[in-house]
Amino acid sequence: MGPATHYLDIDHPFLLYRGEKLPSLRLAYETWGELNQAKSNAILIMTGLSPGAHAASSRRDPAPGWWEEMIGPGRPIDTDKYFVLCVNSLGSCKGSTGPASINPETGRPWRLSFPELAIEDIARATRLVVENLAIDMLHAVIGPSMGGLTTMAWLKLFPKTTRHVALISTSCSATPFAIAIRSLQREAIVTDRNFRGGAYTEDDWPEVGMRLARKLGMITYRSSTEWRQRFGRKRQDYFPQTLFGMRFEVESYLETHARKFVGQFDPCCYLYLSRAMDMFDACDTDESLKSLFSRSFDGHALVIGVDSDILFPLDQQQDLASALESAGCEVSYHALSSVQGHDAFLVDFERFGPPIREWLG
Amino acid sequence: MGPATHYLDIDHPFLLYRGEKLPSLRLAYETWGELNQAKSNAILIMTGLSPGAHAASSRRDPAPGWWEEMIGPGRPIDTDKYFVLCVNSLGSCKGSTGPASINPETGRPWRLSFPELAIEDIARATRLVVENLAIDMLHAVIGPSMGGLTTMAWLKLFPKTTRHVALISTSCSATPFAIAIRSLQREAIVTDRNFRGGAYTEDDWPEVGMRLARKLGMITYRSSTEWRQRFGRKRQDYFPQTLFGMRFEVESYLETHARKFVGQFDPCCYLYLSRAMDMFDACDTDESLKSLFSRSFDGHALVIGVDSDILFPLDQQQDLASALESAGCEVSYHALSSVQGHDAFLVDFERFGPPIREWLG
Repeated sequence: MGPATHYLDIDHPFLLYRGEKLPSLRLAYETWGELNQAKSNAILIMTGLSPGAHAASSRRDPAPGWWEEMIGPGRPIDTDKYFVLCVNSLGSCKGSTGPASINPETGRPWRLSFPELAIEDIARATRLVVENLAIDMLHAVIGPSMGGLTTMAWLKLFPKTTRHVALISTSCSATPFAIAIRSLQREAIVTDRNFRGGAYTEDDWPEVGMRLARKLGMITYRSSTEWRQRFGRKRQDYFPQTLFGMRFEVESYLETHARKFVGQFDPCCYLYLSRAMDMFDACDTDESLKSLFSRSFDGHALVIGVDSDILFPLDQQQDLASALESAGCEVSYHALSSVQGHDAFLVDFERFGPPIREWLG
Repeated sequence: MGPATHYLDIDHPFLLYRGEKLPSLRLAYETWGELNQAKSNAILIMTGLSPGAHAASSRRDPAPGWWEEMIGPGRPIDTDKYFVLCVNSLGSCKGSTGPASINPETGRPWRLSFPELAIEDIARATRLVVENLAIDMLHAVIGPSMGGLTTMAWLKLFPKTTRHVALISTSCSATPFAIAIRSLQREAIVTDRNFRGGAYTEDDWPEVGMRLARKLGMITYRSSTEWRQRFGRKRQDYFPQTLFGMRFEVESYLETHARKFVGQFDPCCYLYLSRAMDMFDACDTDESLKSLFSRSFDGHALVIGVDSDILFPLDQQQDLASALESAGCEVSYHALSSVQGHDAFLVDFERFGPPIREWLG
């Protein structure tokens, strides 16, 4: 939601993957570069859980985006060559319909009355934007983290609609460790005294639960090794030293980042997207990964993982790469050594830039 | 606190490492086997954060202890040969003085008025029990997890009072990852609506915070690999399927274990011990580890670590072993491959039993 945001409004019901429906939809998106006449140069970026559609700056919106160094003229995803599209995920709160939106039938925010959301729904809503732009065949879909799950859902639902695909720090389904972490994050939110079954207000925000959830997220987004290099056992003096308050720099770092996040993301949206990530399974129809890739895709796949990622561990990317290979696809698989854990794709451009540039080139 | 518990009551003030003092002390402990006439066969077991002094069953208390398979006649720590002693840590709530005890000066529980506790204080209180038994030289001190920190504190404060030492799944200080995890656990407890600055009651227990803290603990005590083998993506049907309630077996497993823990451990004791673990640094007086070991110990050291431990990662045990070696000690170092993470020492006796038996033999 900035000066470069476009909106697609759909005024008819949208049937959801788990059976319920939404009466209407609004989808927020941004684009960079120019769509060529053949409409053959479009790259779709699927987002992680929390980022919105503002993946990069532009003339209309100069604020840096969440993948600023990856997208732009001359950058790895080169907007001089490609038309790049990023849609705020259905269920999120950055312009698209989600639990924080107004339910048109009641005039009040959906909150917990929002129907159960699946990753497949995010893919299907994103598809509506692509169709609206009259793009039949994408040049590539790029999905990091939750965006990788959405990319897998896209392949499952819309076979042969993208030439190439990049699956970054992602998997075909969540590990029990990742489920446990997200389950705890949700528990911290719903047990916050201000959550009140979703009836929280601007003045009584479930800050405590959101802060805990975000901190726990950050612990699993980065790596223990990075923190040993970065913080060690250094003490903090930024926050007051209260009883059981913060003593170490790693604690004040988490606090500072969590405070920023708390006001920026709706608690119910967090719950719905988090649960959708747990439930997603690319093979839930008993189709093998190999068969899924065989029927959906015959281009060049890029798979990237990071050795210090504990949320989407490297062997999950190895599995994706193996399945792609056995399906006969061309695969570039990069097991990157980075101390920045799951978040490396957002911060370690030195390692992530070159393989993406090479794959697109 | 069972039929085999002994108590040592100290009716004079106990000066704490961080400068405050306790007016008196009670220390709960258990023993197994017989102390020989020379008092040369005593083995002291230091405990982790939550276990009490009941490390093993005995004729007087047949309930299984927390290290049942490790201690007993013919077991790796053989009570036919050794006199084994385990003291409930100062600051805990299983019989010894701690934040849950009555402050004799007010007649009310200490709770948050308990002075700041250091791991060194646990070592010093434990020393009082050893002295009371008139044991000048221990055969060995065995410290797993937090007990390893207490063992390091023991060596620092009481050099040359043990012939041998075992440091198991432990370190000389906490990593920022471990600090972050414990910081979050404490935050979950102190922000629980029932915590009320330590003024919680039996009827309004900070259950939510304790449950979150325990679940987060368990996530870091076990390993992602174990859970993939054990739970995978299996669904649960034990707990009702509420909105954002539990769907997966890993979630119901955590819930079941957390519920058991909540009533068994005092929230304030948890806070004090948890913080003490963060703050402990064997080298806080600027003495090197090598120098600490050189002056405190010249027996045979056993160091054990587990490759899947994320709370006390293996390189921390490697560091301990290296420092012991460079101090000229005899060291048996075992880097065990176990999927059971930090908790392996409590459950994986097949791997932990033999090295302990061999080291004592």
